[in-house]
Amino acid sequence: MNTRIYNVRILTMEDGKDIFQGEVWIQDDTITYVGPGRQDQKEWDQEIDGEGSLLMPGFKNAHTHSAMTFLRSHADDLKLDEWLFNKVFPAEGKLTGESLYWFTKLAFMEYLTSGITTAYDMYFYVDDGARAAKDAGFRYVFCDSINNFGGTVDQVEKDFLRLNIDRSRLISHRIGFHAEYTTSRELMEGIAALAERHQAPVSVHCSETRKEVEECRERYGCSPVALMDSLGLFRYGGTLFHCVHMDETDYDILKKRGIYVVTNPASNLKLASGIAPIKRYLDLDIPVAIGTDGAASNNCLDMFREMFLVTGLQKAVCDDPEAVPAREVLKMATVNGARACGLPECDSIAEGKKADLILIDLNQPNMQPLRNLDKNLVYSGSKSNVKMTMIGGKVLYRDGEFYLDSSREEIFAKANEYAEKIFADL
Amino acid sequence: MNTRIYNVRILTMEDGKDIFQGEVWIQDDTITYVGPGRQDQKEWDQEIDGEGSLLMPGFKNAHTHSAMTFLRSHADDLKLDEWLFNKVFPAEGKLTGESLYWFTKLAFMEYLTSGITTAYDMYFYVDDGARAAKDAGFRYVFCDSINNFGGTVDQVEKDFLRLNIDRSRLISHRIGFHAEYTTSRELMEGIAALAERHQAPVSVHCSETRKEVEECRERYGCSPVALMDSLGLFRYGGTLFHCVHMDETDYDILKKRGIYVVTNPASNLKLASGIAPIKRYLDLDIPVAIGTDGAASNNCLDMFREMFLVTGLQKAVCDDPEAVPAREVLKMATVNGARACGLPECDSIAEGKKADLILIDLNQPNMQPLRNLDKNLVYSGSKSNVKMTMIGGKVLYRDGEFYLDSSREEIFAKANEYAEKIFADL
Repeated sequence: MNTRIYNVRILTMEDGKDIFQGEVWIQDDTITYVGPGRQDQKEWDQEIDGEGSLLMPGFKNAHTHSAMTFLRSHADDLKLDEWLFNKVFPAEGKLTGESLYWFTKLAFMEYLTSGITTAYDMYFYVDDGARAAKDAGFRYVFCDSINNFGGTVDQVEKDFLRLNIDRSRLISHRIGFHAEYTTSRELMEGIAALAERHQAPVSVHCSETRKEVEECRERYGCSPVALMDSLGLFRYGGTLFHCVHMDETDYDILKKRGIYVVTNPASNLKLASGIAPIKRYLDLDIPVAIGTDGAASNNCLDMFREMFLVTGLQKAVCDDPEAVPAREVLKMATVNGARACGLPECDSIAEGKKADLILIDLNQPNMQPLRNLDKNLVYSGSKSNVKMTMIGGKVLYRDGEFYLDSSREEIFAKANEYAEKIFADL
Repeated sequence: MNTRIYNVRILTMEDGKDIFQGEVWIQDDTITYVGPGRQDQKEWDQEIDGEGSLLMPGFKNAHTHSAMTFLRSHADDLKLDEWLFNKVFPAEGKLTGESLYWFTKLAFMEYLTSGITTAYDMYFYVDDGARAAKDAGFRYVFCDSINNFGGTVDQVEKDFLRLNIDRSRLISHRIGFHAEYTTSRELMEGIAALAERHQAPVSVHCSETRKEVEECRERYGCSPVALMDSLGLFRYGGTLFHCVHMDETDYDILKKRGIYVVTNPASNLKLASGIAPIKRYLDLDIPVAIGTDGAASNNCLDMFREMFLVTGLQKAVCDDPEAVPAREVLKMATVNGARACGLPECDSIAEGKKADLILIDLNQPNMQPLRNLDKNLVYSGSKSNVKMTMIGGKVLYRDGEFYLDSSREEIFAKANEYAEKIFADL
């Protein structure tokens, strides 16, 4: 299928490239031309008039638990232990593959409204999540969350070999486990050997709370980052979720190993976990990506909220209004996000890259006057500016309507029905 | 004009009242009935089918500088001094009454998209701001920002007497001045005498930055709150904007004087001013309202962003996920906001109250599943959920369209034209 998107300002997110007026051509799921309008126009299967909007790469949600939508507003304003053990775990115990399928689709809808084109998901029932992604046309990266309570290294390897054969890369799988505090040394060593065998990076929750870091020090005499590194987990890099409580040794390891940090500022606030040292990461050239975390702790899956928090919180805690400029935040939400998910082909708008694109409506009061658009996006942008979300060349959301295999009504009905059932049984 | 809004869930924001299914009747600008559907229906001039949405009181933006929209994204990621003296003040020096009129209208549009029905504005050219409000139909409360660099007590009194004669209360005026750090003792004493003469509360910026508080202590040996109280400024109460850096004496004065605190969390983050002690205010029963501050420092005028920050930041800094529950935040954004603006007749949905109402679209992924709607609103809500904004019984915004005296195109064109002119001259 040939697609042309015209009458747009283009923010490619390539280094040092300014916004320019032009058009983008797409063959199937891949960008074939980016530049000024041309005379040699083809026959188009699909032409999209951007009406002066801003075209940019879709946002990448580099850490989430998609199906947790069913837990939205179920357990807010509670202490972490009560939240997790009395509210979240019992409800999760009632999940089935089929209910997860619908809760995941509900998350995809919410991602689309926020211009998110990739979800890096860590949860259960990978086959049902992947099926939801395939059916909906959503780009989905999965890593297992095995730990002492479930899952084996063998299973992770089988998933890894089985789920990475999708040539469109709509669905991919990466090696991972839940966290140091839930996982034995033996299991971590098994994951390290697996990563070594496949020369692959490892993804894991890391140093989210102060308690987690302190308990690791008591157990092993070092931080989670240092422990995992000593076990050989990061020989081929890694993607670490949260990274709120870090020390100097940790920074050295992140830098040496080329590790991606994924920050989840709203979730970290809401669960009182703390504020990650993002300015420090930038100063050290450690790449940062952004995630929403699950709807149980956030509670919304909105990259605009996260983008403002990533910079706003740093300005406050560093007492420095210059901390984390807007363009850096956009890079985190797009370029770094794609790379942290193992999808460098989705990181920017350029020939050969995947057509995961969004249109930002500038004809809204929060984008006026039309000056310094990248700052407008980060400091004023909202979901109400997302005019279109396209994944792999297909429009999945436009002007408030969804174009998925299931209707809005069906997804809402199923999600409510399964949620009610789970909570009725508790 | 008779209006009926039906097929809605109603959140009246009256104490202890749950959400219920029903309808609301409006005569001109005033609510005449709230309850279940009735048989004795009248002839209606206007019937609004809420399609299952949530009807609630509009949000009150209890501290803003509306016309600062022209400075949006003009000077971000800068130190406060450079921001204020090199960027904001020179640009403000070029403002005229006519340009302010259009910049203010642009702000009204943005407020409407976020469900904001009242702006408590502190800026220049009150007549042009009031004219914008009257023309657009927006509810506008103004307080002067006189200080050593401009304005007199006499002028404030004239404005106060002249602008409080609007019987619909679409436009009202309150006694105020800029801040302790810009205002001489003599001028503050003049304002205190004026407040005494009219038995009126005083509104003022207060304790926004640590520097401001320290310098006041050097000058007067006490905090800004204590100084102002000692000058008799709060004998009839007051509304204090920011209140980030407070001590125990300050809390006692706020409580004793029945003062409203207006918090501006996004602005305080972005300018690295700090995080106000909201949980402490709640513990002490000091009423808190919420403001966006101006677009120069925020940069967007969005109550949803502020609501999440009000609670999210407290959870993090107090290390307490129970801090500032969702329902309290909604109360700040509606009930307390109205009272902090001197508009108790706009604080809730009840017979005799003004029809400043919004419809929240629940048929969006971020509101699903449909459980715990007040939590969904605060933790997941966004501008994209605002289906309708009504002020004084008139629909000014619905389904993405504006119903103002000027078109969207005209307001955007004028705002851009005047902004370009200001920046070209700098």
